[in-house]
Amino acid sequence: MTNSGTTQRVSVIGLGAMGAALAQALLRGGHRVTVWNRTPAKAEALVGDGAVLAATAADAMAASDLVILCVLDDAAVREHLEPAAERLRGRTVVNLTTTTPEQARSLGAWAGGNGIDLIDGGIMAVPAMIGGPRAFVLYSGATAAFERYREVLGLFGRAEWAGADFGAAAMYDLAILGGMYSMFAGFQQGGRMVRTTGGTATHLATLMAPFLQAMAGLFGQYALGIDDPASYVPEQSADFTVGALRTIATAADESGTASELFEVLLKTVPGI
Amino acid sequence: MTNSGTTQRVSVIGLGAMGAALAQALLRGGHRVTVWNRTPAKAEALVGDGAVLAATAADAMAASDLVILCVLDDAAVREHLEPAAERLRGRTVVNLTTTTPEQARSLGAWAGGNGIDLIDGGIMAVPAMIGGPRAFVLYSGATAAFERYREVLGLFGRAEWAGADFGAAAMYDLAILGGMYSMFAGFQQGGRMVRTTGGTATHLATLMAPFLQAMAGLFGQYALGIDDPASYVPEQSADFTVGALRTIATAADESGTASELFEVLLKTVPGI
Ligand SMILES: NC(=O)c1ccc[n+]([C@@H]2O[C@H](COP(=O)([O-])OP(=O)(O)OC[C@H]3O[C@@H](n4cnc5c(N)ncnc54)[C@H](OP(=O)(O)O)[C@@H]3O)[C@@H](O)[C@H]2O)c1
Ligand SMILES: NC(=O)c1ccc[n+]([C@@H]2O[C@H](COP(=O)([O-])OP(=O)(O)OC[C@H]3O[C@@H](n4cnc5c(N)ncnc54)[C@H](OP(=O)(O)O)[C@@H]3O)[C@@H](O)[C@H]2O)c1
Repeated sequence: MTNSGTTQRVSVIGLGAMGAALAQALLRGGHRVTVWNRTPAKAEALVGDGAVLAATAADAMAASDLVILCVLDDAAVREHLEPAAERLRGRTVVNLTTTTPEQARSLGAWAGGNGIDLIDGGIMAVPAMIGGPRAFVLYSGATAAFERYREVLGLFGRAEWAGADFGAAAMYDLAILGGMYSMFAGFQQGGRMVRTTGGTATHLATLMAPFLQAMAGLFGQYALGIDDPASYVPEQSADFTVGALRTIATAADESGTASELFEVLLKTVPGI
Repeated sequence: MTNSGTTQRVSVIGLGAMGAALAQALLRGGHRVTVWNRTPAKAEALVGDGAVLAATAADAMAASDLVILCVLDDAAVREHLEPAAERLRGRTVVNLTTTTPEQARSLGAWAGGNGIDLIDGGIMAVPAMIGGPRAFVLYSGATAAFERYREVLGLFGRAEWAGADFGAAAMYDLAILGGMYSMFAGFQQGGRMVRTTGGTATHLATLMAPFLQAMAGLFGQYALGIDDPASYVPEQSADFTVGALRTIATAADESGTASELFEVLLKTVPGI
């Protein structure tokens, strides 16, 4: 499939589970896709679908104005980008490898010093969701480059702009994952608690999932208390919340399964 | 409205925000409702809607075979039940006051010793939701009494049986609330993080809410790891989860807003 006018040359460096899914989405979108992976065998299916396998990472970077990286970590990103600085001048690099915000900022500074437009991204999806309706990808950094490639990047999932701070996409990404793991920790703790009364975590799951899905609807309201604490009037008094959390912590203690989770919540949650 | 055949005499002790909503639901269901509250003025609207105001808590308890309590805490429950032990013999008491599981067990033992059928309950709703499609109430304790009154109790919201352990309903209740506060703590922490990159908690709310709503769909799968750890094969390796949590904790540190939340998750979550 080609799409004259909007067809772009795009290179994808890193064909793990995620990089391969990104390259497939670009091929489905009709783009001319050059790929490279440290272990070349992983490119076979993509080549069968029309991708061109470059001999070296540097060759892959030279093939397109838009270069997408999705490798293990920041060290692997640096290992391939730094020797190619000259070759990348004037091009756009989209780093979809998970890094910390500071690593993204440091890479952004390096890119700026070398005339490279860096967009740092955070993928909020598993590979099977790429290109589907629920996937979204956070982007931050080089704003004009993002606008230029917004449509191509939209092939992966909804493209969500987090700001010009190179670290913003990583911060949003990791904040969202932190929320997910906090919720999972609460479910795990609860599952251990109910088992001590003859219940099951499986039964708890059927009750807790719809309850938390409804309660996540309150985030927008609680956000006002974080964005503008001075003018926020909490729905519940801090005393009420502390009382509820103390009762919850006591129940965990009584069950003999208590972790430090609820102790930490007592220090942080009041104020919603 | 009366409903001959299924019309019951029901007493409600405690007419705070929640007790009043429970009494209203019983009146809407066509039952003969006797009420009592320490501060009698709170009964006015209910009396207008057909409830009978008893002069004392003991009179209210004597008026019905089904006695529902919804007062502040365990101490207030004890204060009114203990002097009325003789009068309550052979009746069913449903305690919808929030208590710890041990308090519920202790009350159950006291009730058993006095020939009273005790059902302990945990209301998973705010007063405005009572009788609506999303409310549910957990019950545990006297199983036969629960079956007998299941239809009446169903007027408050879906009646969910948690088991014969008197403490089971409270444990499920507090486990679910613990999950909710864990999720809220994750959102708050995330909101503070993204603000340091020029983002807002309000923007984060629009992204995190649908993401967590989707991820809560995994509780049923993770429950298998809690209910039957020996035969559970985690989707992610513990190494993967620890790595992700370390990156999240680093981002929180870099933002200067870190709480102990992610440190605690590192100790508990791996294994999902
Ligand atoms: N999978 C997900 O659900 C998901 C979701 C969001 C974000 N991410 C992020 O996406 C990135 C890739 O994840 P993945 O799931 O694709 O992982 P993966 O399947 O383990 O693949 C890792 C990729 O990194 C490459 N790599 C590792 N070290 C390298 C090095 N020193 N030089 C060159 N290439 C190197 C691997 O090459 P070889 O094939 O030669 O080993 C492989 O292509 C990670 O940063 C991850 O956090 C993943
Ligand atoms: N509201 C909710 O969203 C919600 C949700 C789930 C569970 N609950 C539980 O429901 C129970 C009642 O909550 P609520 O929201 O109705 O609270 P509320 O509006 O503050 O009412 C408290 C009630 O307890 C009574 N009370 C307090 N101390 C008493 C004593 N020593 N003797 C007799 N009565 C006493 C109060 O009487 P006066 O009117 O005389 O002060 C009032 O009727 C609590 O255990 C709460 O945890 C509430």
